[in-house]
Amino acid sequence: MKEKEFINIIKSTLNSGLIGDDCAYLKDLGITITQDSLIEDIHFKTDFATPFQLGWKSAAVNISDICASGAEPKYLTIALSLPSSISGEFVEEFYKGVKAVSRGVEVVGGDITGSDKIFISVTAIGKSEGRRISSRKSAKIGHKIIVSGEHGASGAGLRLLIGKQREPEKFITAHLMPTPQDEFSKQIAQNIKEDYAMMDTSDGLIDALSQISDASGGNLFIDFEKIPFDKDLKIFRDYKDLIFFGGEDYQLVATVPEEIAENFTVIGEVREGSGVTVKTGDLVEEFSKEDVEKKLFNHF
Amino acid sequence: MKEKEFINIIKSTLNSGLIGDDCAYLKDLGITITQDSLIEDIHFKTDFATPFQLGWKSAAVNISDICASGAEPKYLTIALSLPSSISGEFVEEFYKGVKAVSRGVEVVGGDITGSDKIFISVTAIGKSEGRRISSRKSAKIGHKIIVSGEHGASGAGLRLLIGKQREPEKFITAHLMPTPQDEFSKQIAQNIKEDYAMMDTSDGLIDALSQISDASGGNLFIDFEKIPFDKDLKIFRDYKDLIFFGGEDYQLVATVPEEIAENFTVIGEVREGSGVTVKTGDLVEEFSKEDVEKKLFNHF
Repeated sequence: MKEKEFINIIKSTLNSGLIGDDCAYLKDLGITITQDSLIEDIHFKTDFATPFQLGWKSAAVNISDICASGAEPKYLTIALSLPSSISGEFVEEFYKGVKAVSRGVEVVGGDITGSDKIFISVTAIGKSEGRRISSRKSAKIGHKIIVSGEHGASGAGLRLLIGKQREPEKFITAHLMPTPQDEFSKQIAQNIKEDYAMMDTSDGLIDALSQISDASGGNLFIDFEKIPFDKDLKIFRDYKDLIFFGGEDYQLVATVPEEIAENFTVIGEVREGSGVTVKTGDLVEEFSKEDVEKKLFNHF
Repeated sequence: MKEKEFINIIKSTLNSGLIGDDCAYLKDLGITITQDSLIEDIHFKTDFATPFQLGWKSAAVNISDICASGAEPKYLTIALSLPSSISGEFVEEFYKGVKAVSRGVEVVGGDITGSDKIFISVTAIGKSEGRRISSRKSAKIGHKIIVSGEHGASGAGLRLLIGKQREPEKFITAHLMPTPQDEFSKQIAQNIKEDYAMMDTSDGLIDALSQISDASGGNLFIDFEKIPFDKDLKIFRDYKDLIFFGGEDYQLVATVPEEIAENFTVIGEVREGSGVTVKTGDLVEEFSKEDVEKKLFNHF
């Protein structure tokens, strides 16, 4: 897996402990920061997404990372690189999409340059004041596992798009226009009294749980029947795979103490052990870190 | 000029006053932030620059923007997109270059993805505490115009590279490995008692002066004979053009009151009027905003 190999090279070259989490927490400045790129034909296709949807998603995925950190999303900068064939209307629609999903988050800068393909890199900044910042290392035995929203819809939408289908539209929308879970994040980060783990499900629910298990230790045990999902997903024979590994739902998953968990959808708990365990009725499935990595998207 | 047209579309779509400066100053967080991208075959060629030089320059141009704001450069995030042919050694050398120029500036995150061409987008964060932050709108009639370093060397270096020459090497180095002027910035931002304008010369000295004139009003009047430059530039018949319009020196130019100016190289002053005026002995040249824009690199 070349991406992981490169990240290890970067870590050892820079000798930095801050690389590796989705957001960096810069305590001295009271901010969390994240930067992610979306590249034409790698992360998106212009025949799937309108410019408005592209702007929406580019902002959303970065705001989602800030939400996962527990900070309040505040600012974005956007670097756009565009082929010379791109029109002013594209740029206008793109930024309308950014604005529509950003709500209280302000775009404060960036640049615009030429390129062969569309390249979008967004940086998001969150404010940590009054919030406790999460870390994937902070899951503890006994924590309950809670989630926002429904899972699997985005993966279903992508599959429909690839198959040139446009129905059910709700799944397409889930894929092209995910909604960052700022309210879920705020309720936890403002109220929790101890360290906790929180991630978004950009690479899928099981991957997020696996990353938390890997960083914190412990076995993340969940009950499939408690995971919220749209029952129309059952039009796909392997809907369970979409829920587990589909990715890009940009929902949040957190491990929190009981008194916080009771206000949320609890899908499991952190136990002694390692990896991720999923119980479905009488069936018990174990996923080691390696099992999950094999399943993951590899953008290279 | 498509880039400017697009920026106007973005400004009107977002209705934001913060877009347009190289750095955004986020007062509530006490930071300045900038994001710039470098794209293979648009901003650089891999047969001109080594991976180490590429890492150096990608970090340097963004740190330079923070220096121009007057803030203390603190953190970088870097999004790298790389073709699958790129080796781990490239990544290692790239980050060694980043580290070499960054000194006290820490790389805290970013991402790494696949792409057809190399795409680098860097975000830099500066801390404003104890510093007065510059604005290109803050030049005042009577301010002295001061500069850091020498001018024109980077443009000369680029011309040598295009002509497949490697000598004089100092010009090549100036182009591929510019040094952010953090000490010049600090001396001004920590000591100045009033608002001031400061920019880097990424698009050339005259362009920086013209941008300040345009944003602040006033005529930026300079004496060519006071501009520091390497006398070996005279191997180029049009060395004056390299000094004025060559760009990418990443030196700083500022307009400051007399008492600050006396510690620096003064090249002119802000007068009543508009545009940029250059005096060379008895010759007086006037550059309107439009004259300068015509001369500028247009990456589209």
